[in-house]
Amino acid sequence: MKRSKKEIGKKVGVPPGTLIYTGDKREEFEITAIDYNASGYRKIKVKDIDECASFKDPSTVTWIDVVGLHRVDAVEKIGKIYNLHPLVLEDILNIHQRSKIEYFEDYIFIVLKMLTYDDKSHEIEIEQVSMVLGDSFVFTFRERKLDIFDPIRERIENDKGAIRKRGADYLLHALIDIIVDHYYIILEKLGEEIEGLENEVITNPSQDTVQAIHKFKSNLINMRRSAWPLREVLSQLSKGDSHLITEALIYFRDVYDHTIQAIDTVEMFRDMASSLLDIYLSNISNKTNEIMKVLTILATIFIPLTLIAGIYGMNFKYMPELEWRYGYPMVLIVILVIGIGMVVYFKRKKWM
Amino acid sequence: MKRSKKEIGKKVGVPPGTLIYTGDKREEFEITAIDYNASGYRKIKVKDIDECASFKDPSTVTWIDVVGLHRVDAVEKIGKIYNLHPLVLEDILNIHQRSKIEYFEDYIFIVLKMLTYDDKSHEIEIEQVSMVLGDSFVFTFRERKLDIFDPIRERIENDKGAIRKRGADYLLHALIDIIVDHYYIILEKLGEEIEGLENEVITNPSQDTVQAIHKFKSNLINMRRSAWPLREVLSQLSKGDSHLITEALIYFRDVYDHTIQAIDTVEMFRDMASSLLDIYLSNISNKTNEIMKVLTILATIFIPLTLIAGIYGMNFKYMPELEWRYGYPMVLIVILVIGIGMVVYFKRKKWM
Amino acid sequence: MKRSKKEIGKKVGVPPGTLIYTGDKREEFEITAIDYNASGYRKIKVKDIDECASFKDPSTVTWIDVVGLHRVDAVEKIGKIYNLHPLVLEDILNIHQRSKIEYFEDYIFIVLKMLTYDDKSHEIEIEQVSMVLGDSFVFTFRERKLDIFDPIRERIENDKGAIRKRGADYLLHALIDIIVDHYYIILEKLGEEIEGLENEVITNPSQDTVQAIHKFKSNLINMRRSAWPLREVLSQLSKGDSHLITEALIYFRDVYDHTIQAIDTVEMFRDMASSLLDIYLSNISNKTNEIMKVLTILATIFIPLTLIAGIYGMNFKYMPELEWRYGYPMVLIVILVIGIGMVVYFKRKKWM
Amino acid sequence: MKRSKKEIGKKVGVPPGTLIYTGDKREEFEITAIDYNASGYRKIKVKDIDECASFKDPSTVTWIDVVGLHRVDAVEKIGKIYNLHPLVLEDILNIHQRSKIEYFEDYIFIVLKMLTYDDKSHEIEIEQVSMVLGDSFVFTFRERKLDIFDPIRERIENDKGAIRKRGADYLLHALIDIIVDHYYIILEKLGEEIEGLENEVITNPSQDTVQAIHKFKSNLINMRRSAWPLREVLSQLSKGDSHLITEALIYFRDVYDHTIQAIDTVEMFRDMASSLLDIYLSNISNKTNEIMKVLTILATIFIPLTLIAGIYGMNFKYMPELEWRYGYPMVLIVILVIGIGMVVYFKRKKWM
Amino acid sequence: MKRSKKEIGKKVGVPPGTLIYTGDKREEFEITAIDYNASGYRKIKVKDIDECASFKDPSTVTWIDVVGLHRVDAVEKIGKIYNLHPLVLEDILNIHQRSKIEYFEDYIFIVLKMLTYDDKSHEIEIEQVSMVLGDSFVFTFRERKLDIFDPIRERIENDKGAIRKRGADYLLHALIDIIVDHYYIILEKLGEEIEGLENEVITNPSQDTVQAIHKFKSNLINMRRSAWPLREVLSQLSKGDSHLITEALIYFRDVYDHTIQAIDTVEMFRDMASSLLDIYLSNISNKTNEIMKVLTILATIFIPLTLIAGIYGMNFKYMPELEWRYGYPMVLIVILVIGIGMVVYFKRKKWM
Repeated sequence: MKRSKKEIGKKVGVPPGTLIYTGDKREEFEITAIDYNASGYRKIKVKDIDECASFKDPSTVTWIDVVGLHRVDAVEKIGKIYNLHPLVLEDILNIHQRSKIEYFEDYIFIVLKMLTYDDKSHEIEIEQVSMVLGDSFVFTFRERKLDIFDPIRERIENDKGAIRKRGADYLLHALIDIIVDHYYIILEKLGEEIEGLENEVITNPSQDTVQAIHKFKSNLINMRRSAWPLREVLSQLSKGDSHLITEALIYFRDVYDHTIQAIDTVEMFRDMASSLLDIYLSNISNKTNEIMKVLTILATIFIPLTLIAGIYGMNFKYMPELEWRYGYPMVLIVILVIGIGMVVYFKRKKWM
Repeated sequence: MKRSKKEIGKKVGVPPGTLIYTGDKREEFEITAIDYNASGYRKIKVKDIDECASFKDPSTVTWIDVVGLHRVDAVEKIGKIYNLHPLVLEDILNIHQRSKIEYFEDYIFIVLKMLTYDDKSHEIEIEQVSMVLGDSFVFTFRERKLDIFDPIRERIENDKGAIRKRGADYLLHALIDIIVDHYYIILEKLGEEIEGLENEVITNPSQDTVQAIHKFKSNLINMRRSAWPLREVLSQLSKGDSHLITEALIYFRDVYDHTIQAIDTVEMFRDMASSLLDIYLSNISNKTNEIMKVLTILATIFIPLTLIAGIYGMNFKYMPELEWRYGYPMVLIVILVIGIGMVVYFKRKKWM
Repeated sequence: MKRSKKEIGKKVGVPPGTLIYTGDKREEFEITAIDYNASGYRKIKVKDIDECASFKDPSTVTWIDVVGLHRVDAVEKIGKIYNLHPLVLEDILNIHQRSKIEYFEDYIFIVLKMLTYDDKSHEIEIEQVSMVLGDSFVFTFRERKLDIFDPIRERIENDKGAIRKRGADYLLHALIDIIVDHYYIILEKLGEEIEGLENEVITNPSQDTVQAIHKFKSNLINMRRSAWPLREVLSQLSKGDSHLITEALIYFRDVYDHTIQAIDTVEMFRDMASSLLDIYLSNISNKTNEIMKVLTILATIFIPLTLIAGIYGMNFKYMPELEWRYGYPMVLIVILVIGIGMVVYFKRKKWM
Repeated sequence: MKRSKKEIGKKVGVPPGTLIYTGDKREEFEITAIDYNASGYRKIKVKDIDECASFKDPSTVTWIDVVGLHRVDAVEKIGKIYNLHPLVLEDILNIHQRSKIEYFEDYIFIVLKMLTYDDKSHEIEIEQVSMVLGDSFVFTFRERKLDIFDPIRERIENDKGAIRKRGADYLLHALIDIIVDHYYIILEKLGEEIEGLENEVITNPSQDTVQAIHKFKSNLINMRRSAWPLREVLSQLSKGDSHLITEALIYFRDVYDHTIQAIDTVEMFRDMASSLLDIYLSNISNKTNEIMKVLTILATIFIPLTLIAGIYGMNFKYMPELEWRYGYPMVLIVILVIGIGMVVYFKRKKWM
Repeated sequence: MKRSKKEIGKKVGVPPGTLIYTGDKREEFEITAIDYNASGYRKIKVKDIDECASFKDPSTVTWIDVVGLHRVDAVEKIGKIYNLHPLVLEDILNIHQRSKIEYFEDYIFIVLKMLTYDDKSHEIEIEQVSMVLGDSFVFTFRERKLDIFDPIRERIENDKGAIRKRGADYLLHALIDIIVDHYYIILEKLGEEIEGLENEVITNPSQDTVQAIHKFKSNLINMRRSAWPLREVLSQLSKGDSHLITEALIYFRDVYDHTIQAIDTVEMFRDMASSLLDIYLSNISNKTNEIMKVLTILATIFIPLTLIAGIYGMNFKYMPELEWRYGYPMVLIVILVIGIGMVVYFKRKKWM
């Protein structure tokens, strides 16, 4: 993950309720409303934000998807029409929030983190999605027009599954479910990565492996940081404290189970990554040990022999051995015997 | 354990309630019903799923064992006959669930993980078993026809123990008890393994030992991941919140005690495995230390001697010592004295 | 952070309620009162402390900012006028308190830690701010006249935001919000620092890096120590147990969310710092390994060759090879062959 | 502790309530009943188990001590006479239970682990003691006839302390107190051991020390595993939920305090043992460092000197220095100067 | 801290309520009673224990300080006069208790650990102080006559602070406050120590540093072991569950805050000490690395040169170079070039 100043997550020195978009300036801006019930369906590209007021009709469920948070004015207008608290609007625009859920009298406000995995940089990208669940509507606010919610749109359009027959709470569940799905996609990627790392550590460890493990661990730390608050949100939702969530309750329980399982997997990966580093270190220690053995064996064999050769290279006038007929071959034999003896000794000591 | 993409545990991008089998395609498909009460017993191979409806009779306890989850249609039909919630059917077919328990009005739904140990690969294999406890029936759903439940079948057939005299809740207990038993079998295997590893680390440590410890730890991580949710399920069951569990309550408490003990053992093994790695590392450090000592002693003794021999090998015209009658033996004596002196010095320093 | 005896945080051997200022003697002493409501605003430099009594008027909100705790007498007088408990006054003067909140009948007493980051020494400086929230007034007590609260003063002066329209609880919230903001500023600094450290560890690690990591960790330990009690205080405030906090409740919840996020970030940084040290150590081990390889390769190649040269440097009378016409080039060839052979061998062993 | 398959703790594949003794076959079998009240005392060696029925008389307290669990029939008979649940009997016979307490209508069932320390093997031996507290009787079931309960027997016999004047709950307390006492005896042994290890690590560390630390840690792991459930049992007992425990309640609270203290000590020892291993490792690293210094100093001094000697050992025809009158002493002086210079250099670098 | 058998903390094999003093036999024995109310004060050296009965008068507060627990008879007599439970008396005499609080009908019994720091041995000494708070009296029982409570005595004597105007609960608070104060004195000492260790690790680490860190950690472990139960006691006291504690409640809350802060500091020191050991180890690794570099550079430069000198020291008859006019200077130049080339190479590799 790229860490930048902005991600720390709080605007500094600004009165609460001040609407400031904390992300990067972008081009995209689009409001799409999907209005449906069991019998009908309509999709509207909203041009004038005042149109939104018309979706309040409780006989149909409306999903209003707002892309492009740099248009602070639009968010503010929607807030006024739907009577959202200024702090809610502020949180929607501040894209560095912690995932959370807040209950208001007529609506529930939810902030979630959408994770995607960049295959090239091996980094996890985080995007914030804010949701407002009302009586008969769901708002989704996000920065970029990613296609993550397309399957839901399709299900509504084609009347697939039960979605058209059910209320706004079921729609909310479907949207959150898609987000949790993406956590699983990333867990799959991470699962493949750790298998690769495990292999690398055992067969061909290098300093790059350590850095890859470090990156992997950083990714896990980021996953955890997103997954735990997500779990809290879903725990809240599955308790059924709000009158806005009725028939979808059991589905939220289901998603809650999935977030627990995701967290379990993240923790498992962490344990494994720590274990990998231990193996790496023991591997290096082992190798150093092996190298030292080679050096020591070699030095132990040759250094004494060099001394013998050195002695008979001295220029003393009176060195009787030098005159001997078989002095030279005898010294060669002595050298050989000592050399072989050393090898035998080291073999016994299991150093060779 | 083999980690594969599927085991991450969630179908991505599919509306809830969609019935999809997430395991491998298999051949086996078999539904066996065992119908009994204190006075009688009958075992039926179910051909037509509609027959199942006849087992609803509350005067006998019926255990319907469904093997082969690839037959989604069969599971769906059973679901209809016995009025099971679509999410329950989905969970039965998704074999990568976390163990859990869910209470419905007329039945309890339980997902458990069955563990078996592959003696060859030293890996733990995980299979999912789903159970539904009703008024007078228990369903078990599983992928493969393993013989784990045979002892129960036999006990019913031969009227061994109290099982025939009791209700469906007692049958459920017996089935879960068998599953927990298999956790103990694996703990035994792991216990033997860690004893072996302990021995290896102390007597003959190698890089393979580290890998074996790593594998052992991975197995423990998997055990933990299965055992904790199992514990939660049994904790729930032993609280007696459901009207479906009456006389078997005390037995569930008993199994609950066993799961706690199993988790205790897993945690103990983890502590031990970590400790083993520490010993291994200190062992390697020690050995490197020993090798360095040998090298240093040797070099310290012979390098100065080699210098002496080198000096008297120089070809200066005027080197009075070279002319001395006893120059050569004197040098030899000097060499010996220095060499022996060094040895004495190192003995004193306790390096030899 | 500078650790000094005083920071341990408790006066020893003094009866409770004894008013002693535990900080350094300073020059600054200033009491500023800001009195406002929706329609008006006035700022008074308080000369005579008895004037303070006049601010009790509930129709306006008054913020009385006391700078300079060495004037124990002034604090005592204020305490008498506003009927503060002796222990409260003692806590205000003892600048080494843990952050805390205490509920009294007509007021709430809060102690917080203000953090600032010294860019030169890379140390976090801690200053204590005590606050008293009454019906229509807020007291702030602090040692030094830093400009941290200036934005609030400006907002009141210029009627920016909702602050003038709201009560004393909202003012308290604004003050605490500014303090929490400064935690985020420090987190930004620390975020930049850890990015730098990460870079250093990978590209150019040295013993200084380890010391920098140690300093970074010490800073985190200090952050944690301040952030956790801060969180407790805000958790209390956002529960709404007091009649003094009414409309600002939701704003305290907001600040509470921010403190949780700040703690999350601190914990993330700790995990990363630990991971960095592991990388550093593996890096050093790796380098030692590389160096040993170079030494061993070199010694293994040259020491045997030196022996050969030594043998033919011996002065035996009868060494037939010395007389050979091509003895010298043959020895050179042997030396070359052995040398090259060794290099090939090491290449194969992947040591070169 | 000897780890063996049996200790994993569960009989596999057996219907609940099946009475199987899971320990080793032994010879000892003995039932001793002690019947007392304030005015009288009698001790009976029970021959025929049916005699036990006579002890039900509520005017006296009876302690029935059953040694030898291989006599499954005897245990079963007692169970029938005193109306014990089949699961209780099963737990009594399965000597690999986790410590636990279970409340029944007319009795409380307790399983505890008795620890003894084998001075020779430095291992902790574990024996299971099961207890049943009724209205006016206490049963103790155990495998071997150890003398641990003798002090209690003596106190009853000699009317020492208040034991004769009190009820069965007080007797139970006295028995458990003795068991907890033995935990303290082991803690004393472990305390002595860690003092010894601490000494060894600092003065004379070796690979054996590491193994001793490992064994010590294994013992602690076993202690913990027994002590935590013991604590839970005593926590239960000291809550006073049962009508069977009345006047002894305060005594159970006392024992509960002791188990907490025991656990504290175990955790303290664990921290110390981990710390010892760190010291050991740093000690080894330090030593390797020292050895490397010696080698490097030596090599740095002598290798260059050897080169000088080697140069003047070359056989070139035209080497003017060789002809010089004072060439040889000059070279010797150069050698000495370089040698001494090196030593001075290393002294400055604080390597010597 | 000196660990001795006795400190494990439990008398083994003795019936509860048996009064045995578990400390060392000492000479000192003294009972001092201080009797006061707002209007008067009197201090009595109690000779005959029966005098104690006279202090029961509820119109004055009495503090009875008993020094010298070896006089079991005296403690027993006091117990009888003031109607203390036998277990309380036992706990007073057993000086190896865990800190705890126990509520009785007319009194509260408190055991605390008094810590003092021995400047010479750098060890923490622990002394037990037992307290009994009644309606209008406070008992303190301790082994040795230390001067820790002198400030309180003085405050009463000189009517300093509010102590004379308040009840027995306020006196108890003052006594406990003094004990907590001494924790802070030790924390100051430890704070100085860790600053020293930090310095040592960075500037001049040695094996002694590791031992000092170990001792420091042992001291922290002891601090924790005393501080956590102390915190529990104060948490209890500040809850106000007893009718004996009324007006002093807020003061107990204050002391409770201080114990939390003390524990925070202990935990901070632990984190720092662990971090120090990491720095030490990385320091040693770094040094070994540096030493290896020196050795390797030296060997790499000189060993090949020695081979060259060795080659021209061979005694072959036909070695044309030896006859060359400029053979010798050419070889010297070759040696120089290779040597300098190596140095340049190592400089580039940043080894020098």
